Amino acid sequence: MSRGRFITLEGGEGAGKSTHAAAIRDWLQARGREVVLTREPGGSPLAEEIRRVVLQPWAEGVGAESEVLLMFAARAAHLKATVLPALAAGRDVVCDRFIDSSYAYQGAGKGLGEQHIAALERLVLGDFRADLTLVFDLPPEQGLARARGRGEVNRFEDESLAYMGRVRECFLRRAAADPRRCVVIDAAPPLERVRESLHAVLEGRL
Amino acid sequence: MSRGRFITLEGGEGAGKSTHAAAIRDWLQARGREVVLTREPGGSPLAEEIRRVVLQPWAEGVGAESEVLLMFAARAAHLKATVLPALAAGRDVVCDRFIDSSYAYQGAGKGLGEQHIAALERLVLGDFRADLTLVFDLPPEQGLARARGRGEVNRFEDESLAYMGRVRECFLRRAAADPRRCVVIDAAPPLERVRESLHAVLEGRL
Ligand SMILES: Nc1ncnc2c1ncn2[C@@H]1O[C@H](COP(=O)(O)OP(=O)(O)O)[C@@H](O)[C@H]1O
Ligand SMILES: Nc1ncnc2c1ncn2[C@@H]1O[C@H](COP(=O)(O)OP(=O)(O)O)[C@@H](O)[C@H]1O
Ligand SMILES: [Mg+2]
Ligand SMILES: [Mg+2]
Repeated sequence: MSRGRFITLEGGEGAGKSTHAAAIRDWLQARGREVVLTREPGGSPLAEEIRRVVLQPWAEGVGAESEVLLMFAARAAHLKATVLPALAAGRDVVCDRFIDSSYAYQGAGKGLGEQHIAALERLVLGDFRADLTLVFDLPPEQGLARARGRGEVNRFEDESLAYMGRVRECFLRRAAADPRRCVVIDAAPPLERVRESLHAVLEGRL
Repeated sequence: MSRGRFITLEGGEGAGKSTHAAAIRDWLQARGREVVLTREPGGSPLAEEIRRVVLQPWAEGVGAESEVLLMFAARAAHLKATVLPALAAGRDVVCDRFIDSSYAYQGAGKGLGEQHIAALERLVLGDFRADLTLVFDLPPEQGLARARGRGEVNRFEDESLAYMGRVRECFLRRAAADPRRCVVIDAAPPLERVRESLHAVLEGRL
């Protein structure tokens, strides 16, 4: 039995990651694949508990260091409990946010710097990487408007547009630097049109 | 106003850290110092919440990577919310466990390796170090017996004696490598005798 494929979705708030993660699962299942749909931070009981801690508001604030360490603690648990066992069993794993979000949000957005994120990546991922990363790209104002339309706003969606601009640029920079793994999808058009672009990418890449 | 002093207590389970942390506070207060007594993991609301998560048993297990990242996430919060403000305000801070416990438990005990701990230390501590570290040294069997006598046993106290042997050796190795910061105190004698050794060290060092 061959190892499953690991597909990650990245991009700012409201870009359509969660919407399209489900569409990717459906696309794969229609082709006979078994699929695990998961998300970060989260994806195992311990990781979901860490998600609850990191997304909740704290009177003392959550420093960039605590935040990135909690994200990677959750990622390590998620990989061990959910992602790696599923891939080993031949299932495809579709993951809503992964390592690129750490580079974008804590590395670029909060200014922690790439080297610290890279050290954490070595500790937690070793040389494990996604087979395909889809970066849903959208100007932050549009993403925010969509996220607000959706209802909930979390601690991250409260950040400034300047911060979100750094996040967006980092996603685009990483995608450009690793074109074998990453594809950027323009998320501005209507949902149906974005889904068509997505299907074209899946047909070309998987 | 001059910066307060940062004093950390290290050593295995049941060695007497919590007992002697209170004794150090009393000793300092008797000399007119304002003292904050704190502990790791913990010491701020966010850090105490992380402590709860990491010490609790999880059906999926807690991998060494998740564990060390949670410990450092709590440490970053503790420093920012509690330790650094107190030191800046001229108070002495007495801390029950700190960075040496990460080297000893996750680095040596769990075998994560010193380099990963050192990278996390750079991220969270920069070049911040304790002014004085007291290593309470005791053979693991005696420490376990004392901890069991005390009542609660947590996930860490459940580890094997081989693991605890690696933990003990790591504490001693780090103390030997940094004699300006560290003093080893033999914790095997009766409590009153250990307290006398402690007072002699405090008089010599502070
Ligand atoms: N291309 C699109 N055009 C209009 N609305 C969209 C589009 N893509 C997603 N949405 C809507 O925007 C909101 C945010 O989408 P979501 O998938 O939750 O984004 P994300 O998971 O990236 O934050 C949802 O209400 C979704 O239905
Ligand atoms: N030197 C000693 N001799 C006998 N019992 C001790 C001594 N030091 C501490 N104890 C007892 O051992 C138990 C563990 O001490 P504690 O301070 O909680 O250790 P730690 O915080 O290092 O785990 C407590 O019940 C304490 O009263
Ligand atoms: Mg989403
Ligand atoms: Mg104690």
